[in-house]
Amino acid sequence: MAELLHPDRYFDPDPAQRAVAREIYGQIAHLPLVCPHGHVDPRLFADPDCRFGSPTEMFLIPDHYIVRMLYSQGIAMEDLALTRRDGGATERDPRRAWQRFAEHFYLFRGTPTGIWLREELADLFGVRQALDRTNAQAIYDQIDARLRSPDFTPRRLYERFNIEVLSTTDAATDTLAHHQAIRNSGWPGRILPTFRPDAVVNLDMDGWRQQIELLGQVSGVAVVDYHSYLHALEQRRAAFKAMGATATDHAALSAYTAPLSAGEADAIFQRALSGTASAADAARFTGHMLLEMARMSVEDGLVMQLHVGSFRNHNELIYARFGRDMGADIPVAAEFTRNLHPLLNRFGNDPRFQLILFNLDETTYGRELAPLAGHYPAVKLGPPWWFFDSLGGMRRYFDLVIETAGIYNTVGFNDDTRAYPSIPARHDVWRRAAANWLAGLVVHHIVDEEDAAAMAQEMAYGLAKRAYRL
Amino acid sequence: MAELLHPDRYFDPDPAQRAVAREIYGQIAHLPLVCPHGHVDPRLFADPDCRFGSPTEMFLIPDHYIVRMLYSQGIAMEDLALTRRDGGATERDPRRAWQRFAEHFYLFRGTPTGIWLREELADLFGVRQALDRTNAQAIYDQIDARLRSPDFTPRRLYERFNIEVLSTTDAATDTLAHHQAIRNSGWPGRILPTFRPDAVVNLDMDGWRQQIELLGQVSGVAVVDYHSYLHALEQRRAAFKAMGATATDHAALSAYTAPLSAGEADAIFQRALSGTASAADAARFTGHMLLEMARMSVEDGLVMQLHVGSFRNHNELIYARFGRDMGADIPVAAEFTRNLHPLLNRFGNDPRFQLILFNLDETTYGRELAPLAGHYPAVKLGPPWWFFDSLGGMRRYFDLVIETAGIYNTVGFNDDTRAYPSIPARHDVWRRAAANWLAGLVVHHIVDEEDAAAMAQEMAYGLAKRAYRL
Amino acid sequence: MAELLHPDRYFDPDPAQRAVAREIYGQIAHLPLVCPHGHVDPRLFADPDCRFGSPTEMFLIPDHYIVRMLYSQGIAMEDLALTRRDGGATERDPRRAWQRFAEHFYLFRGTPTGIWLREELADLFGVRQALDRTNAQAIYDQIDARLRSPDFTPRRLYERFNIEVLSTTDAATDTLAHHQAIRNSGWPGRILPTFRPDAVVNLDMDGWRQQIELLGQVSGVAVVDYHSYLHALEQRRAAFKAMGATATDHAALSAYTAPLSAGEADAIFQRALSGTASAADAARFTGHMLLEMARMSVEDGLVMQLHVGSFRNHNELIYARFGRDMGADIPVAAEFTRNLHPLLNRFGNDPRFQLILFNLDETTYGRELAPLAGHYPAVKLGPPWWFFDSLGGMRRYFDLVIETAGIYNTVGFNDDTRAYPSIPARHDVWRRAAANWLAGLVVHHIVDEEDAAAMAQEMAYGLAKRAYRL
Repeated sequence: MAELLHPDRYFDPDPAQRAVAREIYGQIAHLPLVCPHGHVDPRLFADPDCRFGSPTEMFLIPDHYIVRMLYSQGIAMEDLALTRRDGGATERDPRRAWQRFAEHFYLFRGTPTGIWLREELADLFGVRQALDRTNAQAIYDQIDARLRSPDFTPRRLYERFNIEVLSTTDAATDTLAHHQAIRNSGWPGRILPTFRPDAVVNLDMDGWRQQIELLGQVSGVAVVDYHSYLHALEQRRAAFKAMGATATDHAALSAYTAPLSAGEADAIFQRALSGTASAADAARFTGHMLLEMARMSVEDGLVMQLHVGSFRNHNELIYARFGRDMGADIPVAAEFTRNLHPLLNRFGNDPRFQLILFNLDETTYGRELAPLAGHYPAVKLGPPWWFFDSLGGMRRYFDLVIETAGIYNTVGFNDDTRAYPSIPARHDVWRRAAANWLAGLVVHHIVDEEDAAAMAQEMAYGLAKRAYRL
Repeated sequence: MAELLHPDRYFDPDPAQRAVAREIYGQIAHLPLVCPHGHVDPRLFADPDCRFGSPTEMFLIPDHYIVRMLYSQGIAMEDLALTRRDGGATERDPRRAWQRFAEHFYLFRGTPTGIWLREELADLFGVRQALDRTNAQAIYDQIDARLRSPDFTPRRLYERFNIEVLSTTDAATDTLAHHQAIRNSGWPGRILPTFRPDAVVNLDMDGWRQQIELLGQVSGVAVVDYHSYLHALEQRRAAFKAMGATATDHAALSAYTAPLSAGEADAIFQRALSGTASAADAARFTGHMLLEMARMSVEDGLVMQLHVGSFRNHNELIYARFGRDMGADIPVAAEFTRNLHPLLNRFGNDPRFQLILFNLDETTYGRELAPLAGHYPAVKLGPPWWFFDSLGGMRRYFDLVIETAGIYNTVGFNDDTRAYPSIPARHDVWRRAAANWLAGLVVHHIVDEEDAAAMAQEMAYGLAKRAYRL
Repeated sequence: MAELLHPDRYFDPDPAQRAVAREIYGQIAHLPLVCPHGHVDPRLFADPDCRFGSPTEMFLIPDHYIVRMLYSQGIAMEDLALTRRDGGATERDPRRAWQRFAEHFYLFRGTPTGIWLREELADLFGVRQALDRTNAQAIYDQIDARLRSPDFTPRRLYERFNIEVLSTTDAATDTLAHHQAIRNSGWPGRILPTFRPDAVVNLDMDGWRQQIELLGQVSGVAVVDYHSYLHALEQRRAAFKAMGATATDHAALSAYTAPLSAGEADAIFQRALSGTASAADAARFTGHMLLEMARMSVEDGLVMQLHVGSFRNHNELIYARFGRDMGADIPVAAEFTRNLHPLLNRFGNDPRFQLILFNLDETTYGRELAPLAGHYPAVKLGPPWWFFDSLGGMRRYFDLVIETAGIYNTVGFNDDTRAYPSIPARHDVWRRAAANWLAGLVVHHIVDEEDAAAMAQEMAYGLAKRAYRL
């Protein structure tokens, strides 16, 4: 078997380009990691002695990228030790679930999940073989032993990973108690919350009314109408900001924005409170609230992130049994030019406003997003998201975005992950892909090596830090 | 003139990648051909002494890829010896039509048709020059002589091509007499029918009512209402399965699916019988029947293929004069995430169901199709179809699909051709493209050579065989 | 600093491909420039002593590619010495505006604007350094001195650039006085007008009624109803043709075409005259007038160009302050298969008709445009437009279009620029990109060097000349 982690991996095979890529990569490989958007649980850092559990609990169960692929090939989720919401029986032995995973590890050949797993297993656990049916239990033992070692806590890994700052994503109703505990502990790691109000904004999400209750409790504002609702949201934004937040995050099926009058907004809000809001109400309310959130961002300076285009919980059976985030979210086509017209005409020229756009429809990169980012001062493009956080996804992103928007209207990398130990691998793939792309510009004589070096620093570190005001 | 068929053709010029590509290709070049979907006429095999006719009849007249390109450059179809439906005058001399083709052969530079023709002419007919104005008649003679040789029957070619199995595509109303004749003949070639009910499902196709008549006759079920219609379809599926069919095939303008009540379905069916069905009726009926066909596939185990996104017979003048399949079918944008939601929620988790998706809108590869195939156990992706059955189309398909879906949610190659003698060239292009793409993964250190070899076997042979239950 | 203009720039780094690219490029680098579509002001040629003004007036102010990028990074347009329509204060010192441009020149790293500027500065002005904060004023002086030299008039540059023919784009209401002056002057340069009737066709454009007035004056036809309106347009087309025009140009938000009855068309026209036409009226009228324009093209032989898919003046603030063409036009998704169905069924088979299609939605290249061009005799594809007139845009265009349409259904290159001195750089980028793409076909053994050489001649010169009937 070949060396698992070749030092020139992901670089073009052309010797000239490879040499330049290696040179550029060498200049950025060891820069600190800026992690401005992701889904790591802040509890990992609140308790200094926090542990990850078994290899199965660490790698398999929480990773919907892995679960979806195994499920697509006919492996029941129950057999992977996931918990059923309805209490149905599932595998209880983490080793048996791990064995099934190992037997199907070949499914990840050529996929980013395969790459991240290989890198994590090698770098963190010293695993030098591809997982398979025969070595599954021995590798389980090897990982398990390492997980029990004293240097394997989230805080120690934060230092080892050379993370400079890591933003979590937190519900508007979160008390931020874990973030407070991190602060109180005196540990110098910089873990910041991000304000995500989707569950109180999108009227059609399960449990919206309970979320509104909770919003009232945590904000101390009695939420009885649209006016008090806005007030509660402003209170929460202020609380997040006080805890160090620099950004908000918003998810919507589309980028539709359009203003409602205060009267219309309140009427919809009242219908939602009384359980009579329609699907059209929900869509209009979200489109209006994106404008309100932009207005608040102008006022409080929190950078606004917008993620659009995922049809959530497409598989109703899986949702009923296992809940959200099980690999059954499927992208849909997106539109930005018309949908963001109202929002950008109101706020797009305001120097206080920063809007970072993400989506799952690559056709919008060159057609809509790069032209918007290459014109409006407020607009920047997030890195390739989700399925496109991959070597191919990055190559297409660079190819489709940069000629029109330049790199300075982009925001570097987001790891956007729940899988904390995969963070270094994800950043390393980005840095290698960026180095290789820049090397391509150099050997095509589009930019010189000096420019490429400056661009690499920005792509690996500077852009993210400035775009998120970190 | 350079050697027409370079042994390293279609491989990357980088010496490292090329060497690996050559190595991988060498392992799969001579595997048997599995041909699970295509449009070869079963009559070719029913008669052991079947012949192809003149070079013009073999290459030019039946190949709408060729005809459309010549027509686009102002060459009248009448001058290419095609038959007019209305009896209008057309060229009768195959040599004059051939001459026109040869004079315009340069139009196919850089196209897949150019590649296939070059390969067929060289491999089957020993033609070592590019066709042009000066050599047209000499090459005609050379081909014509070979076509008359005793080893140039479809059956002999089947053996020479090393075909393991070849599925045809047959109307639901086909008696399968040719397939029966092949069986009766004792010839060991494996020619299987595929059940294609479009002409009895899509109410707006020309001649639907006559097709329903025919369905009644061939099934022995009097088709008088929706209930008996379903019964007749089930009868035909059983007859196809008895004759060796393992799959069905469905074409629709979009992937729209939505259930009708039995009452609604019958009302539309009755309107169609009486000639009063609307375009909306036809669309709703097709969307419903796709669900019914999926239900039948769950029950009888026939793999369901769905081809969407072709606006058929876009050029009304050409349709009026020459009929269907004249190169005037133009793709439209496609949508799968919402359209297949009803179907997949009903059957997508069923291990008995296998649905293979094809389309002509490459934007759906990464955005919708790969995520769907990478989640639902029932869904697999067909290879790049029609205009995208090309070196560039394959490269984009690999690039856009595999990172998300892996190769194991794809189904290898379909030649999908009417042009029987082009089958080896088409498979060879796929195998070379796959080998080269895998070599790219190797030299980028994404997979190792051992994995690449295993993937190549699957892509050339194993995936198609298993996906189509052959 | 590396040599600014490497002789092998934009070629693939692979030594084999590069050698072939260099060879092919050498055969086409010095061919005359055919410029069939662009926005150079004919006044530049009407006056033999015309001058370009200061470096800021020549490079910065008129180039919305530059302005939009600077604006996107927070530089006020007022600070770039652009004129406000409302008379608001703006920078008056061209050197200070130039300094701001130079300080932000790094924004153009990796963009086509960066490439064109580098080439122009080097070739025309002998500037061998990248513009930056420190050298801004020295380079300003260097350019300024050259601009004052006697050989730096538009006519002298026309000869130096080796332009064979250059078409401008002119309103239907233009008197063509500048074109007449060029003719009268006896200068042998070939500057041809192109008929662009958008301002009198699109009812929702600012000032449509004044344009209709003007149309009446310039045509000598009293435009009082739809009938006289058509007559006036026919008069203008004839006048353009008499002045050497070979083409028309039409811009629309979409490619929608559908006929109106003469009564419907007149009713809408009357509503527009009385200021009561709706947005729907405007869309229907444009869709109808595209059919009328196609009909006139069939009759008078002017090649019809159609540019669709730009949402003009997206940023209302910028439009109010600075007017049109300020970098705030943002693309939208396009559709051709259904939208052009009425037009192509009426005229697509007519050998007198030539329709050249352009758009800003690359997804249509392979899905709709190449199949349409590869079938209809009347349809050809324009080169990659606007944001896609770039190395990456060309590579994707070749990749997505040629396998289906062949090169002979394309029309070579359009520089489509207001920036006259950038014309040689733009053609050179195309020729290098084409040579490199053809070299890729050669080293992949898809075409041989002889075919590649023939294709290169066509792509650099022949296709444009024939497609535009020049």
